[in-house]
Amino acid sequence: MIDLSKIKSPEDIRGLSPEECEALADDIRAKIIQTVSQNGGHLASNLGVVEITMALHRVFHAPEDKIIFDVGHQTYVHKLLTGRYEVFDTLRTYGGISGFPRHSESEYDCFEAGHASTSLSAALGYARARDALGGSNHVVAVVGDGALTGGMCYEALNDCGNTKTKMIVVLNDNEMSIAENVGALSRYLSKLRSSSGWIVTKKKVKNRLQNLPLIGKPLYRLIHGAKEMIKSLVVDEGFFSALGFHYLGPINGNNLSEVERMLTLAKDMDEPVLIHCHTKKGYGYKSAEKMPEVFHGTPPFLLESGKAANPSAVSNGAVANEELIRLAKEDPRIRVVTAAMPLGTGTAAFAAEFPDRFDDVGIAEEHAVTLCAGMAAGGLKPFFFVYSTFLQRGYDQVLHDVCIQNLPVVFMIDRAGISNEDGQSHQGLFDIAFLRHIPGMSVLAPADENELRLAIQAAYEMNAPCAIRYPKTAVTLPGDAQVDEFAIGSWQSLTTGEDAALLAVGSMVAAAVRVAQRLAEEGIGVRVINASTVKPLDEELLHELYRKHQVIFTLEEHMLAGGFGSAVLEHAAGVGAEVRIVPIGVAEQFVQHGDHQHLLVDVGLDDSSIETKIKACITKEKRNDG
Amino acid sequence: MIDLSKIKSPEDIRGLSPEECEALADDIRAKIIQTVSQNGGHLASNLGVVEITMALHRVFHAPEDKIIFDVGHQTYVHKLLTGRYEVFDTLRTYGGISGFPRHSESEYDCFEAGHASTSLSAALGYARARDALGGSNHVVAVVGDGALTGGMCYEALNDCGNTKTKMIVVLNDNEMSIAENVGALSRYLSKLRSSSGWIVTKKKVKNRLQNLPLIGKPLYRLIHGAKEMIKSLVVDEGFFSALGFHYLGPINGNNLSEVERMLTLAKDMDEPVLIHCHTKKGYGYKSAEKMPEVFHGTPPFLLESGKAANPSAVSNGAVANEELIRLAKEDPRIRVVTAAMPLGTGTAAFAAEFPDRFDDVGIAEEHAVTLCAGMAAGGLKPFFFVYSTFLQRGYDQVLHDVCIQNLPVVFMIDRAGISNEDGQSHQGLFDIAFLRHIPGMSVLAPADENELRLAIQAAYEMNAPCAIRYPKTAVTLPGDAQVDEFAIGSWQSLTTGEDAALLAVGSMVAAAVRVAQRLAEEGIGVRVINASTVKPLDEELLHELYRKHQVIFTLEEHMLAGGFGSAVLEHAAGVGAEVRIVPIGVAEQFVQHGDHQHLLVDVGLDDSSIETKIKACITKEKRNDG
Repeated sequence: MIDLSKIKSPEDIRGLSPEECEALADDIRAKIIQTVSQNGGHLASNLGVVEITMALHRVFHAPEDKIIFDVGHQTYVHKLLTGRYEVFDTLRTYGGISGFPRHSESEYDCFEAGHASTSLSAALGYARARDALGGSNHVVAVVGDGALTGGMCYEALNDCGNTKTKMIVVLNDNEMSIAENVGALSRYLSKLRSSSGWIVTKKKVKNRLQNLPLIGKPLYRLIHGAKEMIKSLVVDEGFFSALGFHYLGPINGNNLSEVERMLTLAKDMDEPVLIHCHTKKGYGYKSAEKMPEVFHGTPPFLLESGKAANPSAVSNGAVANEELIRLAKEDPRIRVVTAAMPLGTGTAAFAAEFPDRFDDVGIAEEHAVTLCAGMAAGGLKPFFFVYSTFLQRGYDQVLHDVCIQNLPVVFMIDRAGISNEDGQSHQGLFDIAFLRHIPGMSVLAPADENELRLAIQAAYEMNAPCAIRYPKTAVTLPGDAQVDEFAIGSWQSLTTGEDAALLAVGSMVAAAVRVAQRLAEEGIGVRVINASTVKPLDEELLHELYRKHQVIFTLEEHMLAGGFGSAVLEHAAGVGAEVRIVPIGVAEQFVQHGDHQHLLVDVGLDDSSIETKIKACITKEKRNDG
Repeated sequence: MIDLSKIKSPEDIRGLSPEECEALADDIRAKIIQTVSQNGGHLASNLGVVEITMALHRVFHAPEDKIIFDVGHQTYVHKLLTGRYEVFDTLRTYGGISGFPRHSESEYDCFEAGHASTSLSAALGYARARDALGGSNHVVAVVGDGALTGGMCYEALNDCGNTKTKMIVVLNDNEMSIAENVGALSRYLSKLRSSSGWIVTKKKVKNRLQNLPLIGKPLYRLIHGAKEMIKSLVVDEGFFSALGFHYLGPINGNNLSEVERMLTLAKDMDEPVLIHCHTKKGYGYKSAEKMPEVFHGTPPFLLESGKAANPSAVSNGAVANEELIRLAKEDPRIRVVTAAMPLGTGTAAFAAEFPDRFDDVGIAEEHAVTLCAGMAAGGLKPFFFVYSTFLQRGYDQVLHDVCIQNLPVVFMIDRAGISNEDGQSHQGLFDIAFLRHIPGMSVLAPADENELRLAIQAAYEMNAPCAIRYPKTAVTLPGDAQVDEFAIGSWQSLTTGEDAALLAVGSMVAAAVRVAQRLAEEGIGVRVINASTVKPLDEELLHELYRKHQVIFTLEEHMLAGGFGSAVLEHAAGVGAEVRIVPIGVAEQFVQHGDHQHLLVDVGLDDSSIETKIKACITKEKRNDG
């Protein structure tokens, strides 16, 4: 029997018999289930693409041939087949292999991705490079039906279909993106699926039609050619052919030989081809088949029951939706929007309470933002729940559609800060920098669960664009540092101290309080301020701080460049304040994956690093005094 | 006869006879041609939508009914019909009416837009608001075939077609976006156009088919219903129906009664409808019909000949493409990409020289960026030419697809700085802020034509992500302040002076030199430094400046928040420099439209304002010394 641990490269699976392949597929599934149950990760999607990935590596010859996986979290099978079995146990752990493609891990990872809908553009780029440089390799993009709701895919299909650049798109249609798929296109795909077997049927119809002289001729005149017509007769694959693609399918994507046959066919065609594969998300693991959204991205779980291994902490998303539900009961104008993230953002709770006031637009952040702008212009109060990293895709719309018109859209920015196990493509470390320079935008960063509720209330009342950023997990501040008042543009002092002021943002407020307590024990007095409004700044308090303190620290789980500290520096420079300001945050780098504590140490945001930094500066200031 | 000057609101055109309408259409065209010949503006697209706009205002009742124009530059006719005839002469001038919809101008402008592809999302938001609040108004989006290449449109169609929210999309298909249309979809639309008359034909075929028992039944079994099949038989409008839209058309969009008939039909349908109108861009003005791209956005021109009224200055786009052509002759890996802007960005010159190494992807900035990432990963050296304001749409892709993988894509950012007559939606005032916090990205801002060439050469050699920002018009520095050397991260001093250092960026270097000359005459010595690398900073020089000068000014045609000044503040804070830094730039606001000089005065970036600001600070510093 073949042993998964012996597979060192795709070469090793090309000669396998159908039975050996089947056994290998079982082993791959077992390995993935076992590893994800330990480390957490993306389960359902990877179980669905076992056969597609095996077929790709048997039919094509990577790394010369380029295989690009959309979103990237569906590459576990690919990793196991490209020499990473030995280190697979380290998946998503600090210092271990990534849950996404990484070129630094393997030459087989030819394009990195963590956000959806980029693979077709990347593949087209590779294909054009090949043609320009005289190469002969194949380029294949593997894209899910969920990712296909993203507009970028359409832009790429449109470009590729026009130039007829040869490339192959494998559409992995598992009938859902992360949650249940929502667009009109998903209905359309299901229509295509329900007509399977058409390739055979088509031939029959064609013969039959051509033998009917009376009906045949007038019909032929009405359209452009027999071939075109026959296609449309049998199944309306007009969407992809309108975009210039040769459509093949649908086929059973969990049937290895069927996928291989179709890939081999596509390989020899000299035009853009799309192969429509129907797969089952979670295939081979009952719990994941039944609840694929739960097993999309999962924390560690118990193998037998499929239940989470550790009871999960209260999420800020849950808190926020609870508050929204409360407000929505009073105000029928409140509306909640998500882009394919009803579970991740906690909005499923709102949807359950107000199904008619909830919009899941699919993986379509650009549309989501401008939809909210339209809703707000029409008199509603939309709240868009989105991960910090995915709002990057709506930056232009935030600026151009929401802020120029000063529309009351509230951006509920989840996963602000370090993204832990997901790593570099998912960091929520840029939102302050890409939002605060937009005129008219307010940016709030509550420090704890209670302040999050208060911030939502304030954003709801303000009638202008507003963003609220918060980490995944609800925070409780240490000791008696409770937040029970909130006003936009007004900060609260949490501790007293003369030696320095420490302005902390959101997730770092708790750390600031802890560090101040430790410093107090050493006789250093630090006034911790909860800077829960990142924009506008509390200018009155800042003027007081400029007068009273020789050094002001800012502390944020965010890039230093363009962040909150930078905003305070700009303010101080603008008013000509003579005070030393020391921003503490993340220096220029893409932060890797791992557990939060390790990553905080890496970027210098753990308690000890913060304490050291503050002490060094205060000592220096004191020396300068003396 | 009806007089255009008497049209105060859409009410005034509802009772007109066909002959009166025709005469009015002529008057509207004459007024638009005459005004744009004086003020510059968008000509061809507005001439094409005269009948569509008239029909919309005759069939619907704005402002209760919401009419949303995509891109917004096709609203001149709409402005003339909604009470702005009197002020139409002020179009695009300082203090005058905008060339785009502005809610502050008129309640008939229900959604503002300057970027493409947003109207469907906005309309869907309005439609959902209507349904939620119990309204009964109509919502209509008018979108061009060019804008339809933008992925957002597809995201919105997909969402709307799924929920079946009632709204009407008028597809203004003039066979091109700004330049000739490029996507597969445009071929598809042309196929639809060539099958006009199908609405009648369809009926005939249906009857005929149903009367054929032998062929009829098997065919019916193969597909889902007679209605579906008949549609596909006659014309393959599968693209829009796949997305859940009821497709009507194609019709002649320059025939008023035809458009009105179709709008009236759509009005009563209880589902999303798309009306495919075929129009002629530039209709009614020969020069514009012949060269619609030239008359898309045009400077003032001579009515008789259609030639530009003033010989235009050399553009930086032309300079940059000249340089690229030179490099491309040596290196076959160089590739140029544009998103529907071959003329505006000057890339038409490159395309003429190297048609096979040039990609116009349509209005699809997201795809363009990731396409470049794929090309670079595949071994090419792509240069993406794009306006600053439109690169906003590719922010996520710059970060996620280019910079995380550290790929050598060069962003050629045209129209950096104030956008003059186009106004708030087109300002190039955010690019430093949205690019410089991205790890691994370099940002260059050459001061003159020669330095632009040198910067391109440097970006070409560096093999990592790089952005070069420059204004539309090539600059010559005053006096002997020539730039003839360039190295990334190295700044040059252009003047000497002890009282202050003035770090100027790109378009502001010339102003800095002029101001320094004036100050020198008053005995104030300012050392002007050409900070042509915004990122990375010239740290060595900065340390020297911290030691030598008591005050350092930064000067940029960009927002203060997150800009270059902010980067210098961050650096000084990071190294604990004790120096006063005074950033000069644009304070929080959306800058309006008008001529450059007026707008510079408004934001405090004209020579005199800069001089005043510098003198005030230096005097104060000197007082503090004394």
